[in-house]
Amino acid sequence: MSKIHNFSAGPCILPQEVFQKSAEAILDFNGSGLSILEISHRSKDFVAVMDEARAIVKRLMKLGDDYEVLYLGGGASLQFAMVPFNLMKSENGKAAYLDTGTWAAGAIKEAKKLGTVDIVGSSKAENYSFIPKDYTVGSEYDYFHCTSNNTIYGTQMRTFPKVDTLMVCDMSSDIFSRVIDFSQFDLIYAGAQKNMGPAGTTLVVVKKEILGKTGRDIPSMLDYSLHIAKESMYNTPPVFPVYASLLTLQHLENHGGIAAAEIRNEAKAKLLYAEIDRNPLFETFCVKEDRSLMNVSFKLLDESKKEEFDNSWKAAGINGLNGHRSLGGYRASLYNALPIESVQVLVDVMQNLK
Amino acid sequence: MSKIHNFSAGPCILPQEVFQKSAEAILDFNGSGLSILEISHRSKDFVAVMDEARAIVKRLMKLGDDYEVLYLGGGASLQFAMVPFNLMKSENGKAAYLDTGTWAAGAIKEAKKLGTVDIVGSSKAENYSFIPKDYTVGSEYDYFHCTSNNTIYGTQMRTFPKVDTLMVCDMSSDIFSRVIDFSQFDLIYAGAQKNMGPAGTTLVVVKKEILGKTGRDIPSMLDYSLHIAKESMYNTPPVFPVYASLLTLQHLENHGGIAAAEIRNEAKAKLLYAEIDRNPLFETFCVKEDRSLMNVSFKLLDESKKEEFDNSWKAAGINGLNGHRSLGGYRASLYNALPIESVQVLVDVMQNLK
Repeated sequence: MSKIHNFSAGPCILPQEVFQKSAEAILDFNGSGLSILEISHRSKDFVAVMDEARAIVKRLMKLGDDYEVLYLGGGASLQFAMVPFNLMKSENGKAAYLDTGTWAAGAIKEAKKLGTVDIVGSSKAENYSFIPKDYTVGSEYDYFHCTSNNTIYGTQMRTFPKVDTLMVCDMSSDIFSRVIDFSQFDLIYAGAQKNMGPAGTTLVVVKKEILGKTGRDIPSMLDYSLHIAKESMYNTPPVFPVYASLLTLQHLENHGGIAAAEIRNEAKAKLLYAEIDRNPLFETFCVKEDRSLMNVSFKLLDESKKEEFDNSWKAAGINGLNGHRSLGGYRASLYNALPIESVQVLVDVMQNLK
Repeated sequence: MSKIHNFSAGPCILPQEVFQKSAEAILDFNGSGLSILEISHRSKDFVAVMDEARAIVKRLMKLGDDYEVLYLGGGASLQFAMVPFNLMKSENGKAAYLDTGTWAAGAIKEAKKLGTVDIVGSSKAENYSFIPKDYTVGSEYDYFHCTSNNTIYGTQMRTFPKVDTLMVCDMSSDIFSRVIDFSQFDLIYAGAQKNMGPAGTTLVVVKKEILGKTGRDIPSMLDYSLHIAKESMYNTPPVFPVYASLLTLQHLENHGGIAAAEIRNEAKAKLLYAEIDRNPLFETFCVKEDRSLMNVSFKLLDESKKEEFDNSWKAAGINGLNGHRSLGGYRASLYNALPIESVQVLVDVMQNLK
């Protein structure tokens, strides 16, 4: 079978080494004669996996002991509820949200169930084609929530605002893809299934001191403090997804960390956007300055060439290029593990479309 | 390496075929050239996995279209909160709980956050050594909650009460192990990591008609109705744990279903309990009539023989026999995938201890 170029938006391509090593661990984990699927999460071998999976995140993000790292189940969508449960005051709770796309709107919906939400900026009326920048967030808010990268619309926050309250960020689709001062955030969360690992676990990085101040009676499984007290083992964790995430992060660390990934990601995005800008047949959905380096959402301007284009990229071994059903068009996701060679194959197909 | 006899309480032994097939799928899923870890959950291939994983549960349980099957993230502990969110009325909500162990108590703790909980029976004062049977549950309750098998204490509900309200059961540690009339329950849930699959997903089987009646504003991810409306794909599901669970359930179906598993499980339990009853050195923690066929918790009566016993079972290739830290002693978990040959190895070790 010829090579497949996997542009899927998530779950998505991971390093081939992660597939090899995790398949091996399913047959025999650490030479124990047991599968990683059948060992106790309290076994020495798995406790070591969880400890290292938590530690490597702080090393990669250059964060200190004031932060805690958790691997939870339930997906980033569960964080939409956990964030207000843990940070929004039970009396007169009020949070500021930036509305930059479908997932930001999902987070807003859950926060509204627990208190007042002020949308300090929104590009919804323009079909989320840009990142609002003209807003301030004062200390009257319990926290500010933003989405660093909008997978569907192909926009990305290139800079982050200074706010006078806690800073919360959903980094599901661009975590570990670029150098950021992570210490500007009080809480970061990300579903694993883009740059971090397979579907089934969600990373939470949280500054301990911000917790326990809402006066709320939080369901235990939604309470960050409880998960921290149990070192991310309050209940049986999603063992295999955590292990495969560790393998992915070890691969990142062994290949130059976030700084090196950023250089590779910038090169891939530059290659593809250059072709979109050069080729009169294609156009992005969003404004130039807010283009995402992770998800390149674009449309074909001449519908009569759609069949030819679709046949061509499929024939070239490209997979997962269809746009999200809510937007249409195409979406090339350029996550950490996608090689630049795959982008070149796509660019070649675009250039050959006359 | 000699064979390992895995008595782990969960995550636990699964059929060897599941390890083989899931390792293959990580390297190449369905001959697609892609790993199951990198495919979209919206891909045709994975939608087929989810559809079949839902359908096979209804076939195995002999349930009709009035039930819905979900595979959620977050673990059974999240169900402790989801059950009251979905079933306990927002005004004067009141539920009846049976307190048979640590996990039952965990479920009670979460329900109390949302309404009144009456504990209709408890064996806590006797260290959970039996299943309370002398109670009734009237229609004044929104629902009744019980735990079918108590992993730590080695007790199991051999029969279920008739109640005048909704019947909810946590079957995490004995689901698919014995023939039951599953239609007597309105809601069943179970963390996958015993008889069903690896850690990382939780099965929910729910009668549709009981939902949407509480008047509560439920966080979306905790709302069964929303998950049902999206066919268990409200958000990205835990793809690999769901796939490995499907493989496990297919193995069960191909080997005689629940009825055949029950015969094998009864034979294994009979073999081990016969030795405990015969051997003056050993004793269970619980009364005879409530003994679990899944988890045999027992103690060694002569502490001076502990080192010899521990060395012997370890030398025999036995793994995961230590009791839960809250109870001590030993625990032999005899889940569906454990072969009777492993039980014989343990019995031999017990017989050789003089």
